[in-house]
Amino acid sequence: MLSSDQRRTQLKKLLNSKRCLRALEAHSPISALLAQHASFDLAPGKSVGYDAIWSSSLTDSTHKGLPDIEILSASNRLLNVQEIFEVCSLPMIFDGDTGGKPEHFALHIRALERAGVSAVVIEDKRGLKKNSLLGNDVVQHQDSIEEFSEKIRAGRASLRTDDFMIVARCESLILDQGMDDALQRCLAYVAAGAHGIMIHSRKKDGQEIIEFARLFRQVHPDVPLICVPTSYAHLKFEELENAGFNVVIYANHMLRSAYLAMKDVAEDILRNGRTLEVEPRCLGIDDILRLIPGTV
Amino acid sequence: MLSSDQRRTQLKKLLNSKRCLRALEAHSPISALLAQHASFDLAPGKSVGYDAIWSSSLTDSTHKGLPDIEILSASNRLLNVQEIFEVCSLPMIFDGDTGGKPEHFALHIRALERAGVSAVVIEDKRGLKKNSLLGNDVVQHQDSIEEFSEKIRAGRASLRTDDFMIVARCESLILDQGMDDALQRCLAYVAAGAHGIMIHSRKKDGQEIIEFARLFRQVHPDVPLICVPTSYAHLKFEELENAGFNVVIYANHMLRSAYLAMKDVAEDILRNGRTLEVEPRCLGIDDILRLIPGTV
Amino acid sequence: MLSSDQRRTQLKKLLNSKRCLRALEAHSPISALLAQHASFDLAPGKSVGYDAIWSSSLTDSTHKGLPDIEILSASNRLLNVQEIFEVCSLPMIFDGDTGGKPEHFALHIRALERAGVSAVVIEDKRGLKKNSLLGNDVVQHQDSIEEFSEKIRAGRASLRTDDFMIVARCESLILDQGMDDALQRCLAYVAAGAHGIMIHSRKKDGQEIIEFARLFRQVHPDVPLICVPTSYAHLKFEELENAGFNVVIYANHMLRSAYLAMKDVAEDILRNGRTLEVEPRCLGIDDILRLIPGTV
Amino acid sequence: MLSSDQRRTQLKKLLNSKRCLRALEAHSPISALLAQHASFDLAPGKSVGYDAIWSSSLTDSTHKGLPDIEILSASNRLLNVQEIFEVCSLPMIFDGDTGGKPEHFALHIRALERAGVSAVVIEDKRGLKKNSLLGNDVVQHQDSIEEFSEKIRAGRASLRTDDFMIVARCESLILDQGMDDALQRCLAYVAAGAHGIMIHSRKKDGQEIIEFARLFRQVHPDVPLICVPTSYAHLKFEELENAGFNVVIYANHMLRSAYLAMKDVAEDILRNGRTLEVEPRCLGIDDILRLIPGTV
Repeated sequence: MLSSDQRRTQLKKLLNSKRCLRALEAHSPISALLAQHASFDLAPGKSVGYDAIWSSSLTDSTHKGLPDIEILSASNRLLNVQEIFEVCSLPMIFDGDTGGKPEHFALHIRALERAGVSAVVIEDKRGLKKNSLLGNDVVQHQDSIEEFSEKIRAGRASLRTDDFMIVARCESLILDQGMDDALQRCLAYVAAGAHGIMIHSRKKDGQEIIEFARLFRQVHPDVPLICVPTSYAHLKFEELENAGFNVVIYANHMLRSAYLAMKDVAEDILRNGRTLEVEPRCLGIDDILRLIPGTV
Repeated sequence: MLSSDQRRTQLKKLLNSKRCLRALEAHSPISALLAQHASFDLAPGKSVGYDAIWSSSLTDSTHKGLPDIEILSASNRLLNVQEIFEVCSLPMIFDGDTGGKPEHFALHIRALERAGVSAVVIEDKRGLKKNSLLGNDVVQHQDSIEEFSEKIRAGRASLRTDDFMIVARCESLILDQGMDDALQRCLAYVAAGAHGIMIHSRKKDGQEIIEFARLFRQVHPDVPLICVPTSYAHLKFEELENAGFNVVIYANHMLRSAYLAMKDVAEDILRNGRTLEVEPRCLGIDDILRLIPGTV
Repeated sequence: MLSSDQRRTQLKKLLNSKRCLRALEAHSPISALLAQHASFDLAPGKSVGYDAIWSSSLTDSTHKGLPDIEILSASNRLLNVQEIFEVCSLPMIFDGDTGGKPEHFALHIRALERAGVSAVVIEDKRGLKKNSLLGNDVVQHQDSIEEFSEKIRAGRASLRTDDFMIVARCESLILDQGMDDALQRCLAYVAAGAHGIMIHSRKKDGQEIIEFARLFRQVHPDVPLICVPTSYAHLKFEELENAGFNVVIYANHMLRSAYLAMKDVAEDILRNGRTLEVEPRCLGIDDILRLIPGTV
Repeated sequence: MLSSDQRRTQLKKLLNSKRCLRALEAHSPISALLAQHASFDLAPGKSVGYDAIWSSSLTDSTHKGLPDIEILSASNRLLNVQEIFEVCSLPMIFDGDTGGKPEHFALHIRALERAGVSAVVIEDKRGLKKNSLLGNDVVQHQDSIEEFSEKIRAGRASLRTDDFMIVARCESLILDQGMDDALQRCLAYVAAGAHGIMIHSRKKDGQEIIEFARLFRQVHPDVPLICVPTSYAHLKFEELENAGFNVVIYANHMLRSAYLAMKDVAEDILRNGRTLEVEPRCLGIDDILRLIPGTV
């Protein structure tokens, strides 16, 4: 068991010691445990794993069967975080949506900080939050630089430790506002106190965020830069690392794969009238129980 | 949205109108939604689906990364039930483990009843609960008929509606106590007020529970009888229905399939350095969002 | 134990059978139990008690030590409601603050309705909610009639029963906008679908809300009208009843009296170096235990 | 805001720096805030206050309207603890009742430790827990020394920090088992690893626990010793301090005084038909709002 303080400080330490981190979405304690235990041997003696987990508002909402419109409250999501922290020792980056009203944001991040979360990401949108990946059929409004900077400042003023990071997520590329707008905003957010930047894009080829990283790095060689390769899924970790990113977040694949597996199993049991055919796709009960610490 | 009263009464109505019901384990709102929407056309115009969901203490615990030893509290599991009921309209059968102390059981089932749960299943064991499927290497103690009957009576006395069912689960076959012991106990439990019986067995061929059903039906032609074909996964729904069972519960396959899918995805992203290869195993984000009521 | 359906429908029944109801604030299960058991004999054989409880956002927040700025989430407050409903059978009127964004309001009231709450009150303000009784030093913004009516309509469209009531609370008098504005707004809110009106005022003599009731009753003789005599504490229940009000809410006195009693006891134990002197101000432990159902 | 680690370690530090500590029961965030802010000037420049708060299972249960029979789950009480820690910086001693089964105790105290609680007190009873102060009409069973020592050892083995304390509470005097039994048990509990001892007594004059302290101190001059002057309310803090106690817990007075105040107010509003007469017993709304950090 990590204490909250030990866990919170881990992310900064990792950012200092590694060029680029891998973060995997976890929407439940068991998915967080799986993220922690996953590993792959790139070469003999060179094993890689996940450095952090990503608490996604999209997958937290979907897991509860709720729309991704900030309907799940901060306190409800915090409960989930605490249950994850009971069993998993990875540091956490928390998807804070828009952050809500500045006064609420200030109180919420203090609770996150106290719980041992390492970073919160807030995006520069206002009004009813809608998922970025749904496209622009639904009108979305970007917050003004001034107001979003004010929210960052309110967050900074509320923090009690040096460990916790506020990351500003820029939606300019998602909303087709152009590279200049993205860059101008991100520089302003860093000036306002953001500890890091997440840049998001819907372009399939990924060149847009690579170009952004190049330009951003000319001004800020050291400010942590985060990307989320959902749309440009073909770009490899090393390419993103070489482009200058410090954290790569695989933002929703645990829930999406669990979803498809459960959907298929639910239907196949009906089709076959029994579970015999789906058993190979189900982990053995003995295995499950063995993996849980404390099983007797 | 069903009211709690409407939902609770559904199970009894279904037991009266169908020979045998299908129940699928759900450990989260999204798995419950999937259970509700799953269907298969046995023949043109003859579609089957799940009649109920099963809230399993094993999968609820595992989902939280906790051992299956009744460490997850009744209030914690009730929270999960309420979140499921926000989005899913199927009736629920609730796995109540041993039920705990009679005074606690009496209070807990009242909360379940009020929330809209239709039935609770309690098993005739005492001491620290351990999973039945782990075998008898760990010593397990069966409760005495007298004390378990007293627990059933305490539960009955606590109920406020005619809809809610208390089902007694007999572990005699699991613990190799023989068919006579199983039968004697189940008759005593019905006499004590149990509304139904769940018979459990670890035998691979399933003949044991079929024989039990034959003998039990000679005494009680109408008392609801429930089986859980985890060990005898080859027996088909129709065979169990014809043997006299009224509910067949697929008790843990949603979590076990989700687990394996997530485990594979977590490892494959590391292996490939990107998500491209796992995308076909992940439901599309658009699809996920479309399936959630209220997404805009 | 009342089912959710039975409890929810109670408020409408009481409004139909009595001229005016008394509602008392309850911020915890024990305060709700006390509200339920309180009674006074006005005359031999004529006993009065509370008809409903009021779940106040001010006292719920204060009880948690949090500012009254809608920081306590809907899900957190719902947990409190459910704990109250475990032990108290009175119907509940729920203080919904501004109701938040229309899309959130629609989802939240469905959860309240399902839980068995009878009515929600939302106020016609926007921006960061601040307590009405703090005066107008802090600038407050009233919502436009159009937008607030839209929120009422979104709420109505979301309801699943005929029992649940949406009450519009008008802040025109609090914000010194005059009687005409108050009346115009309330008529618009009723036209938009509000099931009832709460009129609020800071004037000490109470004549303002009496005049409002007179004017409102000329148009709507039957629409439920609610007042909160916090500022005009000298007006008696009968006077408000005769003025045409249907519900009188004593909105925060349970918490405020508990607060003062605890503050004094905490200091007096320090002063005296022992509890002997404060014991007469503390209910006997035996009495407490006797009052809780199920104590053995 | 204190981090969990900073808060947890506080109790040990205080025990090292002061002869005797004052702890006050708190069942809610607001009562904890009041405990933190209470102070009294014993002499010019010599102010006293509370050093810690006591999370009581009796008052936590009563506050929820539930009987004091361990029906409130560990996870539910932990939620309350976390809400208290959001707003109050005092260290906490947690009433753990019997601690439950050793396997559950081991998991629960790890959660308490992680949350920042400083100490848990468990009592040497078994079976259905009933309140000690109800007298011996209800038969209570004391645990055997061997089994209770085993529970202490299981708890010790589960701890991850050096800060957290497990305190054994001995019920021998409550159950009229005599001074020798009390002493023998407490020495055994310390030998099993208990970090401290709580001795409880129903005798009105308090001489029993003073005598116990004298005898215990002959063997263990430094092991922290705790008393709860509920029955012997006339003994002053200094007397208990001089008798050798290290913590004096005022274990239920906040809830009991709040209860009586709310009961009177609920009845008096009915009696008077208005709140005018009870206003002097209610803290002003302005005062309440001013006391909550963050109110705007």
